Amino acid sequence: MIIDWKKVAKNIYENLKKEIKRLKNKPKLVAILVWDNSSSLRYIAQKEKWAKYIWINFELIHFDKNITQKELEKKIISLNNDDLVSWFIVQLPLPKHLKENEIINLINPDKDVDWFHPINQWKVVLWDENWLKPCTPAWIIEMLDFYNIEVKWKNICVIWRSNIVWKPITNMLINRQASVTSCNSLTKDIKYYTKNSDIIISAVWVPKLINKDLVWDKKTIIIDVWFSIIEWNIFWDVDFEELINLWHDVSPVPWWVWSLTVAVLMKNTLKAHKIKNISINK
Amino acid sequence: MIIDWKKVAKNIYENLKKEIKRLKNKPKLVAILVWDNSSSLRYIAQKEKWAKYIWINFELIHFDKNITQKELEKKIISLNNDDLVSWFIVQLPLPKHLKENEIINLINPDKDVDWFHPINQWKVVLWDENWLKPCTPAWIIEMLDFYNIEVKWKNICVIWRSNIVWKPITNMLINRQASVTSCNSLTKDIKYYTKNSDIIISAVWVPKLINKDLVWDKKTIIIDVWFSIIEWNIFWDVDFEELINLWHDVSPVPWWVWSLTVAVLMKNTLKAHKIKNISINK
Repeated sequence: MIIDWKKVAKNIYENLKKEIKRLKNKPKLVAILVWDNSSSLRYIAQKEKWAKYIWINFELIHFDKNITQKELEKKIISLNNDDLVSWFIVQLPLPKHLKENEIINLINPDKDVDWFHPINQWKVVLWDENWLKPCTPAWIIEMLDFYNIEVKWKNICVIWRSNIVWKPITNMLINRQASVTSCNSLTKDIKYYTKNSDIIISAVWVPKLINKDLVWDKKTIIIDVWFSIIEWNIFWDVDFEELINLWHDVSPVPWWVWSLTVAVLMKNTLKAHKIKNISINK
Repeated sequence: MIIDWKKVAKNIYENLKKEIKRLKNKPKLVAILVWDNSSSLRYIAQKEKWAKYIWINFELIHFDKNITQKELEKKIISLNNDDLVSWFIVQLPLPKHLKENEIINLINPDKDVDWFHPINQWKVVLWDENWLKPCTPAWIIEMLDFYNIEVKWKNICVIWRSNIVWKPITNMLINRQASVTSCNSLTKDIKYYTKNSDIIISAVWVPKLINKDLVWDKKTIIIDVWFSIIEWNIFWDVDFEELINLWHDVSPVPWWVWSLTVAVLMKNTLKAHKIKNISINK
């Protein structure tokens, strides 16, 4: 199966656009930017662009980069209490003098459409489909859903490195009754697990780790979540070239994968908007 | 390896006793009992007995079973704000007319020695050894530590059913760099995973699921976390009789396993006491 990433992203945005266009009362998203480095500026610009494309009102609050921890905390508390702000996100990373975790923990969990707050992350572990989803792991699920790839009772191997992003995907898959093996780059006999997997998800940032030795079954679906850039070249965990030559249908995740993350953020915003309107009309 | 459960439990209690006896300022634990069914009464009695044995002051607050949600919430908030109460636990289950989750979420996470609050549970997912541990998964770790069983780089198969208790053990093992396969009772080809495992942890409540077909290696360590009682007979997930006959060293978890859970609760209480005293003396 060749994954057409553009189709997946386009599908989410077009569905959201169609639905939001019809709403009288449009959702609004407030974004807080503290550290305006080039990568954050680009990310925020994309969030703005896509929000506007699908009729979500977008407001940017740009704080001074030298804001103190206390001042930023005060601003967060005032946004928590401001009835006119239904949801807001804080663009990460924050400058090094600020304690990122403490800021995230301070956000009112009900206003956290990024789904970063520990209480919300814990909901992901327990899985409650009524809630929002953390954006990066959620696009993996979106992609699987788009292609009608059932995960229930499937064997899935997740090769991971970092904590916050890849733990939720493991828990989300377990909640959908998949049998999930969490490997790391030091797993004894990693091949034993990959070769028996229906799906392999890799996020370990070891170039070409997943090659013909590890993938035996041509039906195995391989998802590379991210890539590493080494000396201006993009490397994936998956050796796509080798696997394509062996007639596997594999498709590298595109460099604009963050646009899928943004798509889920917008989906969260609409969902939060609907949940709020239901509780108002009650 | 034959697990001497009594030795594991005794070791924890004796170490705690030795340490607490020496403290001038003894830790105190407050327990809230709402529903005084026979099983909760027995559990609370054990908590009291063991607390006293190791010199922890124990106070029981017994509320009326018919207390309303609002009244109980008010009591929890007053305990949250009472400087004389450093930690407290709420004995579960609560009577059906009360919303258990809402009560747990209301407890000040800093006073929650049961480690049930979502913020605390999320810390377990992220793993921070400076914090306390949820009691049931933690005794599995205690047992492994007691017998110097290293989990790093080991292959572990966790067969699970419920949400709150067994998810943390999976995340705790992943955090210790084990490769963990989470199976359920419907996993395709479960044998494939169990037979390659250094450790199998089962908590699925299917009598005799783990038998000679699933365990090939005599060095595999098998931990049955709980048992089911069917018509007055105890059944384990593991077919201990069959495996013992094949010269596996296996030892069924004893019926008094909750005393290990209580041991970890007491360990949490001492740890919380020490953390608090450090921050006071700063």
